[in-house]
Amino acid sequence: MDAAEFRRRGKEMVDYVADYIENIEKRQVYPDVEPGYLRSLIPEEAPQEAESYEDVVKDIERVIMPGVTHWHSPYFYAYFPTAHSFPAMLADMLCGAIGCIGFSWAASPACTELETVMLDWLGKMLKLPEDFLAGTEGRGGGVIQGTASEATLIALLAARSKIIKLIQADHPDRSETDIISKLVAYSSDQAHSSVERAGLIGGVRMKKIPTNSEFSVRGAALKKVLEEDRAAGLIPFFFCATLGTTPSCAFDCITELGPICNAEKIWMHIDAAYAGSAFICPEFRPLLNGIEFADSFNFNPHKWLLVNFDCSAMWVKKRSDIIGAFKMEPLYLKHDHQESGLVTDYRHWQIPLGRRFRSLKLWFVFRMYGLKGLQAHIRKQVGLAKEFESLVRADKRFEISADVVLGLVCFRLKGSNELNETLLKRINSVRKIHLVPCQLAGKFVLRFAVCARTTESRHVQEAWSHISHLASELL
Amino acid sequence: MDAAEFRRRGKEMVDYVADYIENIEKRQVYPDVEPGYLRSLIPEEAPQEAESYEDVVKDIERVIMPGVTHWHSPYFYAYFPTAHSFPAMLADMLCGAIGCIGFSWAASPACTELETVMLDWLGKMLKLPEDFLAGTEGRGGGVIQGTASEATLIALLAARSKIIKLIQADHPDRSETDIISKLVAYSSDQAHSSVERAGLIGGVRMKKIPTNSEFSVRGAALKKVLEEDRAAGLIPFFFCATLGTTPSCAFDCITELGPICNAEKIWMHIDAAYAGSAFICPEFRPLLNGIEFADSFNFNPHKWLLVNFDCSAMWVKKRSDIIGAFKMEPLYLKHDHQESGLVTDYRHWQIPLGRRFRSLKLWFVFRMYGLKGLQAHIRKQVGLAKEFESLVRADKRFEISADVVLGLVCFRLKGSNELNETLLKRINSVRKIHLVPCQLAGKFVLRFAVCARTTESRHVQEAWSHISHLASELL
Repeated sequence: MDAAEFRRRGKEMVDYVADYIENIEKRQVYPDVEPGYLRSLIPEEAPQEAESYEDVVKDIERVIMPGVTHWHSPYFYAYFPTAHSFPAMLADMLCGAIGCIGFSWAASPACTELETVMLDWLGKMLKLPEDFLAGTEGRGGGVIQGTASEATLIALLAARSKIIKLIQADHPDRSETDIISKLVAYSSDQAHSSVERAGLIGGVRMKKIPTNSEFSVRGAALKKVLEEDRAAGLIPFFFCATLGTTPSCAFDCITELGPICNAEKIWMHIDAAYAGSAFICPEFRPLLNGIEFADSFNFNPHKWLLVNFDCSAMWVKKRSDIIGAFKMEPLYLKHDHQESGLVTDYRHWQIPLGRRFRSLKLWFVFRMYGLKGLQAHIRKQVGLAKEFESLVRADKRFEISADVVLGLVCFRLKGSNELNETLLKRINSVRKIHLVPCQLAGKFVLRFAVCARTTESRHVQEAWSHISHLASELL
Repeated sequence: MDAAEFRRRGKEMVDYVADYIENIEKRQVYPDVEPGYLRSLIPEEAPQEAESYEDVVKDIERVIMPGVTHWHSPYFYAYFPTAHSFPAMLADMLCGAIGCIGFSWAASPACTELETVMLDWLGKMLKLPEDFLAGTEGRGGGVIQGTASEATLIALLAARSKIIKLIQADHPDRSETDIISKLVAYSSDQAHSSVERAGLIGGVRMKKIPTNSEFSVRGAALKKVLEEDRAAGLIPFFFCATLGTTPSCAFDCITELGPICNAEKIWMHIDAAYAGSAFICPEFRPLLNGIEFADSFNFNPHKWLLVNFDCSAMWVKKRSDIIGAFKMEPLYLKHDHQESGLVTDYRHWQIPLGRRFRSLKLWFVFRMYGLKGLQAHIRKQVGLAKEFESLVRADKRFEISADVVLGLVCFRLKGSNELNETLLKRINSVRKIHLVPCQLAGKFVLRFAVCARTTESRHVQEAWSHISHLASELL
């Protein structure tokens, strides 16, 4: 395919994409296929000779679409949202065309510099403390990671490296493996599975701090475990607080936890993967109070800020902590500007070496929506969640299982877990809407997350009357 | 921006992309900017109100392009190639539109299933042993990772987890941290920095095995170190072989190393990040002989197989090894088909949780080029490297520093390192072409990697006469 054919095919694809989004609610949100459906629809081997583009394109509807879960359908209420917008898609086209690999400043200066500045813009939108911004002389700064899982892992590894250096400074005879064997990291018992996984990868003990009746970690709970662990000769070094947990969008009490971590020299990382986007609205910004105690902070614009996946924004107060954990400098990656204070080589900030020009998506989205447009998007979706909450509350058969703070409603039928499992099974088997469950204090709970940008009040009303109808059939 | 405006803007962007690629050689390959250039060109904060698309687009040439290193310019010969093709870009547009997050089968069955089948297609193109294919009943299979760095890390972590279980089966009293403190992993002294970094992340000792005069690890060299380490009470558990090293595209002798690793129960991972694409050509496939001894294998279609970044293909012989290292199952990620043998939940195969629908790129590229078209691309670029090699060899002032096997030529002026450093500095400061150096056996060497899809014989001839001219000025 040459550039001339790309001009034609690219424009056809733009229309296909626009058609897909404009008509997405006509598609069944969750597919009917059984495992293994796809293999029999296509050949067993790649073709020897090139095929025509027409043949490829007609297979999109024949092979792919029947097996797609439509995350951007207004009938999709599962997991958490994944962001999607036209400006982000345009930026991604440009990103693919430039196709640079921005592992160092020299590998493509624009790729690195736009990222640093966009993370400053975003940090200012969130009113992050100055320490987290790069500016021209800051010691902190932001970086785009692929996912929150990677951000948590990077933070844990940086903390691990820092505590080892700190202990070895006083006790040069203590080996790294000896120190690691005593380290202990903490998170909420509601934290995402990726936090536990980060501990597993880093080879350190990971303990879950019990949450209160609102699924939130309070200072006293952390303090108790810290005392026990110190007494047992362990070395607490890392606490991952969650703002907006996956099961119920609960918030750890970082104004209490932060001072404890600071006093005990424990790295506090804040994972606000979903909720973070809401902090651009003044009315939700108090949820981030306590951020000043954190060493690192992360949230996913690719969840709720209209920036297509992947784009997980992470900030650190001291870039030297994160860089120090990984820095390696083979000759083929060195460049003239290496030593300059202005230069950032993002490869030292992340697990992979290669990286795409993802800041273009942030730039396009921030400018095409403006801060007000992005705030409007958050407020609209919170409003839809509140609307769903009222519908649930008005029905005596149901109960709300956790405070509705942002765009997630946790609810259930009053009654047994079995009953609620059956209700969810029916909902998902009818395939009109799609939900996933969670477990809260031993109870099986249904999660209703407002996801698609195209979700309107009528969809929420429709979803509720459907759920209510299925419940009536069941009861 | 609504769908109607996206139709218009998307088509304009398609033309911009086509124009960019068609005229890329008119742009200076390496930018003139100084560190910090970008910040002063744009506002300090995101706009409150939405801007017009025209304003955003005109900033591409004003703000971005002056700072881009043009990796797809035919004058770019630095690092290794990063792939770029029109079919891959079309597939990426579709990927963005569907915008699903394929962490589990249920989260979008097509996303998972196309990936499994495409990795089988690609495995067959490489003539991988049957063990590595998923088929319908295989115990192995392939996965798309973001980068080779992640693939190496995943392999090392799986190996770490496997050896711990193995040792604890015989010695239930030995703690995990005690075992980890004795573990030792190996790679070539020419291995990529990401391999050493994987050891650092995994918290295990990593040793570099000395290479021979062809920069290749031979069996005897590994054997010697293994004997010493076993005698010292260490536990060898992982060897990362490289096929096509970054400095000089050297090949570790896996036909010798493989049987040693198998006999010693050491996990052998093969990193063929760059070279792997060439193995689709029968004449280069012998370089992969010995693959039958490996536990895992990885290469980057996003380097040399015309699939835009990111797309790093990894296969394992036993999927249970890799899954066992990480599996976590919170309720919100469980689904009905979990237990079926046909279902793959790729989140257990990788570091991040989220993942894009990247197999679409493979599908489009394989079909639009056909195996023959892809082989032609590899052969053309190897031919261009051979052409450059002949030019160097015909000039008595220069020497070739390593065998030219694929698309990389390592060369230098006969003489001091300083002289060669000066030559490279001049080449890069003139900015007509762009190269990076490497170090081989203490010598400062220039690397000429054939990168862009658009590179033709005339560009290589022009590059050589430019280098030759600068050398004459210098000498």
